[in-house]
Amino acid sequence: MLNRVRSAVAHLVSSGGAPPPRPKSPDLPNSASAPPAAPPQAPRSPPARAGSGSAAPARTVEARASFCRPTFLQLSPGGLRRADDHAGRAVQSPPDTGRRLPWSTGYAEVINSGKSRHNEDQACCEVVYVEGRRSVSGVPREPSRGQGLCFYYWGLFDGHAGGRAAEMASRLLHRHIREQLKDLVEILQDPSPPPLCLPSTPGAPGSSDSSHLVGPQSCWSSQKEVTHESLVVGAIENAFQFMDEQMARERRGHQVEGGCCALVVVYLLGKVAIIVRNGEIIPMSREFTPETERQRLQMLGFLKPELLGGEFTHLEFPRRVQPKELGQRMLYRDQNMTGWAYKKIELEDLRFPLVCGEGKKARMMATIGVTRGLGDHNLRVCSSTLPIKPFLSSFPEVRVYDLTQYEHCPDDVLVLGTDGLWDVTSDCEVAATVDRVLSAYEPNDPSRYTALAQALVLGARGTPRDRGWRLPNNKLGSGDDISVFVIPLGGPGSYS
Amino acid sequence: MLNRVRSAVAHLVSSGGAPPPRPKSPDLPNSASAPPAAPPQAPRSPPARAGSGSAAPARTVEARASFCRPTFLQLSPGGLRRADDHAGRAVQSPPDTGRRLPWSTGYAEVINSGKSRHNEDQACCEVVYVEGRRSVSGVPREPSRGQGLCFYYWGLFDGHAGGRAAEMASRLLHRHIREQLKDLVEILQDPSPPPLCLPSTPGAPGSSDSSHLVGPQSCWSSQKEVTHESLVVGAIENAFQFMDEQMARERRGHQVEGGCCALVVVYLLGKVAIIVRNGEIIPMSREFTPETERQRLQMLGFLKPELLGGEFTHLEFPRRVQPKELGQRMLYRDQNMTGWAYKKIELEDLRFPLVCGEGKKARMMATIGVTRGLGDHNLRVCSSTLPIKPFLSSFPEVRVYDLTQYEHCPDDVLVLGTDGLWDVTSDCEVAATVDRVLSAYEPNDPSRYTALAQALVLGARGTPRDRGWRLPNNKLGSGDDISVFVIPLGGPGSYS
Repeated sequence: MLNRVRSAVAHLVSSGGAPPPRPKSPDLPNSASAPPAAPPQAPRSPPARAGSGSAAPARTVEARASFCRPTFLQLSPGGLRRADDHAGRAVQSPPDTGRRLPWSTGYAEVINSGKSRHNEDQACCEVVYVEGRRSVSGVPREPSRGQGLCFYYWGLFDGHAGGRAAEMASRLLHRHIREQLKDLVEILQDPSPPPLCLPSTPGAPGSSDSSHLVGPQSCWSSQKEVTHESLVVGAIENAFQFMDEQMARERRGHQVEGGCCALVVVYLLGKVAIIVRNGEIIPMSREFTPETERQRLQMLGFLKPELLGGEFTHLEFPRRVQPKELGQRMLYRDQNMTGWAYKKIELEDLRFPLVCGEGKKARMMATIGVTRGLGDHNLRVCSSTLPIKPFLSSFPEVRVYDLTQYEHCPDDVLVLGTDGLWDVTSDCEVAATVDRVLSAYEPNDPSRYTALAQALVLGARGTPRDRGWRLPNNKLGSGDDISVFVIPLGGPGSYS
Repeated sequence: MLNRVRSAVAHLVSSGGAPPPRPKSPDLPNSASAPPAAPPQAPRSPPARAGSGSAAPARTVEARASFCRPTFLQLSPGGLRRADDHAGRAVQSPPDTGRRLPWSTGYAEVINSGKSRHNEDQACCEVVYVEGRRSVSGVPREPSRGQGLCFYYWGLFDGHAGGRAAEMASRLLHRHIREQLKDLVEILQDPSPPPLCLPSTPGAPGSSDSSHLVGPQSCWSSQKEVTHESLVVGAIENAFQFMDEQMARERRGHQVEGGCCALVVVYLLGKVAIIVRNGEIIPMSREFTPETERQRLQMLGFLKPELLGGEFTHLEFPRRVQPKELGQRMLYRDQNMTGWAYKKIELEDLRFPLVCGEGKKARMMATIGVTRGLGDHNLRVCSSTLPIKPFLSSFPEVRVYDLTQYEHCPDDVLVLGTDGLWDVTSDCEVAATVDRVLSAYEPNDPSRYTALAQALVLGARGTPRDRGWRLPNNKLGSGDDISVFVIPLGGPGSYS
């Protein structure tokens, strides 16, 4: 079963968001500070990047035979068994007695009702310290904590066809982001515009001054303005690529068969970059499905027909074309069209359409319902050897929300949830639950966000009744894995 | 000089829009009712469509040696000379004494201040009658006016590198739309859902019933719902393709060298389809430029590198890369990225970027500033034989505005303007002029819309002063051709 992840920001009102304090030591569970993430080697596409190959690759996720849950849940072997029980579906949250998650983030999860052996969702919540790779000015710098940067990071990963891709991404994606940010540590802390060009080696002169410009040419009369923000966006975009490439290289050792969608929040220097993968727009995210990405997929099939292997047509039809309809005229839609028109059915129109179906039943190559994600390197069309991966994109859509531009109150939260939540809960219902639960707690009680996450998970799961999990309105609850982060937008300073 | 066209809807308030009355006879100047538009033959892309080749091609625009203005201006030879005078720049409108344009549409235009020999804008305003091609049910029908459809049509065409493409499009595009609608005449008048499949020949049985469906397959469990509206959208989209293909075939005879942007409004069965080509979004349109279409262009260059001819790189850089920077790290942006990152400069990064520059100076292949339009079939990169046309799209973006959903008052207008208007006039200024001019006339005085169009053109042109055309605030007026339609949204019934 394929899943989607999406996010929603509920309640955007008053009370100041402070910049994150630099933690003295990133001593959180599953810490990202220790061994560096494996830097990708010889990436083919995107092109060679700064830093590639400059550090030795490290094995960061040991191949594991059994399933796992986020370490911040601090589950004992008995707790792990309870979390894995499809019959009881006990809601899991970090223990009250344990160390609180950064920002007093609330978290809750529950396993599916039997659709897969284990919970294929994964989660990560970290404070990540980024040490500069070297001085941008070319002079090697003493390693010193004070000159680094740190970012807060939340990630939800919704696996399909197995949980390994989600597990691997939950352990490594933030390290790839850290790796990509290393070059930017000095640049981001310097208010002047980013240098357009960096020396290739420490000590070599930079070429960031404009005297290096070539003579005037009509469209080059001014340099393009590149903002600090767009550098962070670019770093996150490339981190997703490197994560996907590492998954391709190491998938055998990690027993990665399937793939996963990712929903990630990065808080850095006062801005929250909300990375949405297959998320819906309410209001911070967007789903990537064969329907929403139809034109990208059709264009790829049209420009690279060899990827269709003679089995598919890049044209869309409202239903399967039958051989006896040859010569008749059927409604179709080409990659450039949003409307429909009639065309005469020819032999190659009898091929299966690249994109077909609607809503939850929309599929690409009759196989997969999500079109962006990490992993799926082995995925092939049913009873065929045709690879599907060329049509999948691992590029995220990054949206920036400036926390410092608004005053946030303790009831302002960002709700991140996997499909299990959003399939059965409307945005209005989420907003109502936010209201109801938070108002039952003192504003300065940090446990309110975990209580809210639990209420959201319970509300989506329902209770066992009439041979199924049912909601109070008697509709079916979600039988999917359900995972929810509740991030108070008041920021890290409020509940230290 | 390259131009852009855009549209804005000003004042959307009260007073009912009636469906268009069927004119007894389409006896307007430059009528589209007479010879049919040349139906395209053997189109390569998009695929073969219904009706292709079913009628003999007709020569509809005679090759002409001199320039022309819209026939509805009814210019005498002397008037034509005045309209062509760069020094006087007299504003042209249809004569008061003449037949009024449909819907009492206002129109005004003025020639440029010398940037091209003639006015490269063109305009068309028509009521077009569509006779059904044949009965959908397969039984040939008696030709009968009563069973046809008619649509109202307004088009502005902003030529570049010559005015011939704009001229040809202004005379033929609505005929291509008519041609595409012929198959839909019965279907659009039948409230039941459109048939998915039509017989290939009159008399053959249709296959629109669902008993023809193949056995259940996961993603085909339901047929895609195709609306009447999406059929009209598809017809318009394909009409643009056929127009562009006809221009390719017949460009020699018509002396078409350059291309044009198109902004088109179609009113059919109570809905206005506003087709925007290279238009900005205020609020009904969007510009198609190397900046807004960067990712489409880069993706095409990445997937079909042969189109770059070894001269261009699909990567974007904030300025031209210099040979001495080889090995250093420069900011770049790939087709999947919205942010920027550093990459090590390699030899092929020294090629000129496919997309460069910003705003009005943005260029594709260092040549063209608009990326969708009609024509430009001969356009090559400067001092090179590399063709640019493969990167240009002739597909429009179609937006539908349902006139029957709102009550429109006589002051509600749709303003269509070419670049000449929008380059120097803000949306707020347009709205203020709409207010000022319309309030000076009685609501039922149909000449108010022409007065408004004239005021908008004059306000963008300015008056000759200090060696140039200047606006009251002393800024430069537009030296470009300026053309403006003002369409009262109250509809065709109000001023008959």
